[in-house]
Amino acid sequence: MDNLLIHADSERNSDQYYATGFRAGDPFTYFRARGRDHLLIGDLEFGRAKKQSKVDRVLLTTEISDALKSKKKPNTPPDVIAEALRRNGATRVFVPASFPLKLAQELSKRGIHLSVRPDPFLLKRLVKRPDEIRHITHAVRVTESAIGLAASLLRRSKIRGNRLVLRGRALTAEYVRTEMHLYFMRNGYLANETIIACGDQACDPHDRGSGPLRPNRSIVFDVFPRSAHTLYWADVSRTFVKGRPSEGLRRLYGAVRDAQDVGCKSLRAGVTGKSVHEKVAASLVDAGYKTERRNGSFVGFFHGTGHGLGLDIHEPPGVGKSGGKLPAGTVVTVEPGLYYPGLGGVRLEDDVVVTRTGHRNLTRYPRNFVIP
Amino acid sequence: MDNLLIHADSERNSDQYYATGFRAGDPFTYFRARGRDHLLIGDLEFGRAKKQSKVDRVLLTTEISDALKSKKKPNTPPDVIAEALRRNGATRVFVPASFPLKLAQELSKRGIHLSVRPDPFLLKRLVKRPDEIRHITHAVRVTESAIGLAASLLRRSKIRGNRLVLRGRALTAEYVRTEMHLYFMRNGYLANETIIACGDQACDPHDRGSGPLRPNRSIVFDVFPRSAHTLYWADVSRTFVKGRPSEGLRRLYGAVRDAQDVGCKSLRAGVTGKSVHEKVAASLVDAGYKTERRNGSFVGFFHGTGHGLGLDIHEPPGVGKSGGKLPAGTVVTVEPGLYYPGLGGVRLEDDVVVTRTGHRNLTRYPRNFVIP
Repeated sequence: MDNLLIHADSERNSDQYYATGFRAGDPFTYFRARGRDHLLIGDLEFGRAKKQSKVDRVLLTTEISDALKSKKKPNTPPDVIAEALRRNGATRVFVPASFPLKLAQELSKRGIHLSVRPDPFLLKRLVKRPDEIRHITHAVRVTESAIGLAASLLRRSKIRGNRLVLRGRALTAEYVRTEMHLYFMRNGYLANETIIACGDQACDPHDRGSGPLRPNRSIVFDVFPRSAHTLYWADVSRTFVKGRPSEGLRRLYGAVRDAQDVGCKSLRAGVTGKSVHEKVAASLVDAGYKTERRNGSFVGFFHGTGHGLGLDIHEPPGVGKSGGKLPAGTVVTVEPGLYYPGLGGVRLEDDVVVTRTGHRNLTRYPRNFVIP
Repeated sequence: MDNLLIHADSERNSDQYYATGFRAGDPFTYFRARGRDHLLIGDLEFGRAKKQSKVDRVLLTTEISDALKSKKKPNTPPDVIAEALRRNGATRVFVPASFPLKLAQELSKRGIHLSVRPDPFLLKRLVKRPDEIRHITHAVRVTESAIGLAASLLRRSKIRGNRLVLRGRALTAEYVRTEMHLYFMRNGYLANETIIACGDQACDPHDRGSGPLRPNRSIVFDVFPRSAHTLYWADVSRTFVKGRPSEGLRRLYGAVRDAQDVGCKSLRAGVTGKSVHEKVAASLVDAGYKTERRNGSFVGFFHGTGHGLGLDIHEPPGVGKSGGKLPAGTVVTVEPGLYYPGLGGVRLEDDVVVTRTGHRNLTRYPRNFVIP
């Protein structure tokens, strides 16, 4: 029975949220000792922690601090944490790789022995419970509706020269993004970095995209909102062309779509993320698309095939060069892409559950390329 | 000339964003060596980092990794970071208190000497440049407009029994919150945790509030959006009553308003946050409001007077029990509050710049309590 220690806020550290079920924007302490979950927190959050957290015991820093003081012992924050651990017999604890260095040093000085356990720190997070799958599926559905909304804006727009025009105004990445974000907000989701990248913008996979959307060029939509209620994410990408794609762009799209099928079909509990990624990469090479550096930048397929998805938008297991074995019940993205400046970019991304015999795709949005 | 090292993403770690001017959701490495700023990043973000970051040099992990490999040396991520530091003569570096423990251990093994420098790690962040003050002021203005929108919903609602009714429906915390968040989104801001806490809900200062808003009870609005463009925050609180507050509630409000004035007037470059907080706390005690524990929960004034504000919603300097000297040009909140279950809660929060001779209040929203 391992003793565990996390010191972090739970808005940014999902292990902390998963372990405690308690949301707080400022750091607090969680520890597991003698098989029981404890939360150690200050006056301000104590009442709420008792009501909302799912740990076995909520401890108040002030109580421990006062007890130390009355014994004329030092009572700084590390003293209080060390004392709480000692009282519960947890002088040896595992901490995450991200554990803050300074606090680690202070606890070591106070006789607490810390060992780093590599990520994933909370192994259970890797395999999603049915309620977690439901949360992710809900996020995927809402994401698909938002993509549908974007597609309808493209459909309703008219081609005027090298612009798209809707209700007399140029249709821009910013306008479509805001409409999608408003939709998410009305539905209890938060998105702030949706990628709507047209033409060569899409060739830098983390360029969010900006300015007028162009006809006959591919537009990558990479959409990843988080539920404000459950805190689970979806992460879905689709690529559209308004108008007529060139033959080269059509071929690019077909190669990515086929590679995504290859990726999904190679998923099965027990296979490695690495082997899935290699098959996807090989499929793109076989289709004639090489990955290489041109003028200092990469072209082709130069990112991983996918990543785990849950309380974090990027979490284990990885589906890339160094991806290990995939357990049944884990949720990963499958998102091959090809990027060639001049021609454009294409990325398709689905969210899927790895099963004992294969996979279950949570994503239903069709992979249509051309919007007339 | 200190060598510095940060390894973090810049969405969640504001030091990383401040140091590099580069936004990325996944961790990357920044270091300062021989007085020059470096960014060390993978293939995927390399192009964007060269375009968007403000560092002197962007290094590619793959390049260093390949060089190590060709010399038959290990080339794991810590090897690459250690090699990049060595190449630039930075074998001794300062790291932040939050530096990840595992990476610290790996770098130490590779001959890099790390010393923790306590927060604030980047001392410059404490004193805001004119452009930073402008960004915060803009955030405050947008926040005030959103508070005005909430006040207008209260004004337009009718009292029906113990509910407020607007257009035939009960006015709830959730409805007002969504309207405010939509307003923020349309104006390029993100807010997801706005507190709208009515009656006893407000007595737990981190309860966001939920359900129908009640007449004649105080409603605390604590509003803290972040600009999606500049990444700076505002943090403003107002307390309203729709209808008629009791005499006790009026007195409570007056005491908090007076305490806020005391707080603002005691600000001046060189005074300590502690002395400001003590004056605010004394003013509340003098007005007859004691802080104490009742039935296991605190009542009275049981949080700090304020906190620094900038790229983080809570950042140094603190204006509380252990607050040190305040430099000219720092931005802090002044937010006394009183909370008594049964009676209700009141909090007022302004964002102010500390100046050589006093302070400059960035907040303009009037402190009206009663909404008829």
